[in-house]
Amino acid sequence: MSETTATRLAIIAGHGTLDAAYPPLILATAAVSMDMEAAIFFTFYGLEILKKGNADKLKVPPLANPAMPQPLPGFSVPNVVGVLPGMTAVATGMMNSWMGKAKVAKLSELLEMAVEFDVRLIACQMTMDVMGIKKEDLIDGIEIGGAATFLEYASQNAIALAF
Amino acid sequence: MSETTATRLAIIAGHGTLDAAYPPLILATAAVSMDMEAAIFFTFYGLEILKKGNADKLKVPPLANPAMPQPLPGFSVPNVVGVLPGMTAVATGMMNSWMGKAKVAKLSELLEMAVEFDVRLIACQMTMDVMGIKKEDLIDGIEIGGAATFLEYASQNAIALAF
Amino acid sequence: MSETTATRLAIIAGHGTLDAAYPPLILATAAVSMDMEAAIFFTFYGLEILKKGNADKLKVPPLANPAMPQPLPGFSVPNVVGVLPGMTAVATGMMNSWMGKAKVAKLSELLEMAVEFDVRLIACQMTMDVMGIKKEDLIDGIEIGGAATFLEYASQNAIALAF
Repeated sequence: MSETTATRLAIIAGHGTLDAAYPPLILATAAVSMDMEAAIFFTFYGLEILKKGNADKLKVPPLANPAMPQPLPGFSVPNVVGVLPGMTAVATGMMNSWMGKAKVAKLSELLEMAVEFDVRLIACQMTMDVMGIKKEDLIDGIEIGGAATFLEYASQNAIALAF
Repeated sequence: MSETTATRLAIIAGHGTLDAAYPPLILATAAVSMDMEAAIFFTFYGLEILKKGNADKLKVPPLANPAMPQPLPGFSVPNVVGVLPGMTAVATGMMNSWMGKAKVAKLSELLEMAVEFDVRLIACQMTMDVMGIKKEDLIDGIEIGGAATFLEYASQNAIALAF
Repeated sequence: MSETTATRLAIIAGHGTLDAAYPPLILATAAVSMDMEAAIFFTFYGLEILKKGNADKLKVPPLANPAMPQPLPGFSVPNVVGVLPGMTAVATGMMNSWMGKAKVAKLSELLEMAVEFDVRLIACQMTMDVMGIKKEDLIDGIEIGGAATFLEYASQNAIALAF
């Protein structure tokens, strides 16, 4: 057995909610700061993150997440309230406000940083076909690829993670 | 430090929704096409994918997924509408229709392909015990195993991913 | 190309629901039983698992999970029923009852076992800042770290998985 040090980070981003979009971008930019390479493969709803002007519009679902801290401490919001049309906005506003107070970069800023850091941002061809998304709908500086593109990248000395 | 090329793909499939079931099967069959080995460990709700006759009945949740494209472009469906009993069917029908138009194989077809390609399909013993699922409830050609089965497989030159 | 055997398991736990909390703890304790090292990085809602006295209070979302087995076999609960305030309790009670019948350890027991087994439990600094969580809010025996802590650990002969 030999020792191996991973030199790349290979991430699959498959969800398009605000909370799910942060980890891939935070980890990829952190990896580059540590002198690793990084690539993110955006597939299914994850492609929402790459749509032009969309990164800062992603939302937090207030439903189906019993672990979501409640807007008022000690006051539990039952699911039925989470269903009211305004609650997605409340949950999303809350997370954006938390992020701002903790001086965490906005998603659009992390995305720009990722492009500057030469993180490979790969849009899933099959998802684009399935959902009718065109290359011009997506931000500049990305490439288009498939499962094989991801697997080839991930097969060489990589930490691979799916979100 | 030595260079290492992964020769296997080790996947955990833990969700039983239609959108969550595709990535493990697409990646595993792609890996075999690239001369890699592949195994999928089906656990928790992921076992739904292996239930006899169930693969093409999996559904897309319309709720709690603000990134889900809306049925009518430009017309946003608030959560409260997603709750109406018919909306799971609408979201599921939409995704099936997209997949069909893009000539993506049905889940049952991908599952058959995985069996033909000798992808190891491993059903989680503990989940079967917990949920009262019997081997005869599951499709043919699978094996039953535990966390150790997965970890042993994943520890040898593998790309490991959890969905 | 050389053969490599992973000697560690590096997990990201990013969700705080009961069903999402089990896999990281089951896999980490299984890994130690197999003479591997293990670390779990708790981030975003995953931090709920580490909050003092909280592990056995985590809930199962009944919504947005069409694969969730229904309380009454053959009787399908539409989403609209899942929204009723009591349904989270029903789904959570069901899963706890299943787990008990199958003699699966409670989450708090798995967490204690992980501490005894020297699994590194790492709370995400950024999430603590963002959500205003203090070290004294979390169980004893953990450490605090960031994305770099996780990536360093995961880069050395590890199976890496994100949940």
